[in-house]
Amino acid sequence: MKTLKVIKIGGNIIDDDVALQQFLQAFATIQGPKILVHGGGKLATKLAKKMQVEVKMVDGRRVTDADTLAIITMVYAGKINKNIVAQLQANNCNAIGFSGADGNTIVSNKRPVKTINYGFVGDVKKVNTETLEILLNNNITPVFCAITHDKKGQLLNTNADTVASEIAISFASVYNSELYYCFEKNGVLKDVNNDDSVIENINSKSYPLLIENGIIYEGMLPKLNNCFYAINNKVQKVCIGTSDMLFNANNKHTTITK
Amino acid sequence: MKTLKVIKIGGNIIDDDVALQQFLQAFATIQGPKILVHGGGKLATKLAKKMQVEVKMVDGRRVTDADTLAIITMVYAGKINKNIVAQLQANNCNAIGFSGADGNTIVSNKRPVKTINYGFVGDVKKVNTETLEILLNNNITPVFCAITHDKKGQLLNTNADTVASEIAISFASVYNSELYYCFEKNGVLKDVNNDDSVIENINSKSYPLLIENGIIYEGMLPKLNNCFYAINNKVQKVCIGTSDMLFNANNKHTTITK
Repeated sequence: MKTLKVIKIGGNIIDDDVALQQFLQAFATIQGPKILVHGGGKLATKLAKKMQVEVKMVDGRRVTDADTLAIITMVYAGKINKNIVAQLQANNCNAIGFSGADGNTIVSNKRPVKTINYGFVGDVKKVNTETLEILLNNNITPVFCAITHDKKGQLLNTNADTVASEIAISFASVYNSELYYCFEKNGVLKDVNNDDSVIENINSKSYPLLIENGIIYEGMLPKLNNCFYAINNKVQKVCIGTSDMLFNANNKHTTITK
Repeated sequence: MKTLKVIKIGGNIIDDDVALQQFLQAFATIQGPKILVHGGGKLATKLAKKMQVEVKMVDGRRVTDADTLAIITMVYAGKINKNIVAQLQANNCNAIGFSGADGNTIVSNKRPVKTINYGFVGDVKKVNTETLEILLNNNITPVFCAITHDKKGQLLNTNADTVASEIAISFASVYNSELYYCFEKNGVLKDVNNDDSVIENINSKSYPLLIENGIIYEGMLPKLNNCFYAINNKVQKVCIGTSDMLFNANNKHTTITK
């Protein structure tokens, strides 16, 4: 089986023009089938402010009302996605930008209203790999923003980490599927203030202990839950670290294993 | 040879939610390979005002500076394109949104500065049909916004009528290529105040006379130049009218012939 790399990048790369350019240059050199997933960075919040669209938070989580969804669609699927695609093309990587609506690739359910109404937020129901496989077989690189749809005409805001893990899982029967979460740190750190204190391996035995000891908390929890979800659903390799882990074999990072 | 329909829609459909929904429902039923090209409508101008980005005009033409390009990319490639794709998917038409950067499908040259600097405006150099053919052969419908790229990382604002004609021309060796310009009128009118006065056929002999007699003028000139450019470059059929011409054989419209 061929290897497919699913690589997710976040704000530390997207919000920095130089970092993004350097990353895309390096990304373009990765051989074999690959899919890039990008988050939104700070641009959507900036645009919302400029347009005087109020950021609504419930229990510390952003609510996606119709205005916010419009902004997210413009920024994620428009500005960020197309600029990434254009830069990859400049580096001779034949990219095509995708939302989950394009090619009906990612179908979500609008999150049901229980105590909190998150608005136009989607939980992934199904990734349709058929069209993507055709493209990958033709040496084309899909670039996903974190917007999905409900197949009834509604776009939905979806967590980019989740989009990446769901894509990696859906391809695990076709490829040796590998999932890389790139962020600003070298990996999961023992000591959040020491960037060298990378925990090189986390497995399902050590994970609960790391939570218990307060080493993994807050924002790292959903990220690691996505990792374990992927590794427990046939994804062959799951890593967290800076994007350097993709290009330098000696670069320290965290690998998640069963 | 199979027939490919290249259909361009403009502001009268895009700016009207109900009209757009009805059009996309009908468009989804068109059998055989098809490509949709959409203009931008009034949304970009509205957003520019909201963001206090000045609309710069030189000799009656809009100049695309960096801020304007960002807005156009957000509105055309983001909001409009993704909403069209999501609605087509809801109607079981397997659409994928494209800018010219995606799949390196449309490469443009930045318009050289002579007396006027139009900014980030692209004149189409080449349409690469290979990826699009793969998609069309798999019953996928490309949906193009009017943004192209220079293959060096720069997105470029490009006239949507031109994008449509260039796509139709580039496919003329592979398909019976047909080009349909949908707009708010039933076609080219003898009397601009009488919507029934449709000129049903314009050819290269009658065209100069219609210009001479002041029947074709202003905005209709570049549209008709695009039509003749297409028909003189192996496009089999070129029509102008309301989108009804696509769905009702008896609907009056203008056909352009050699």
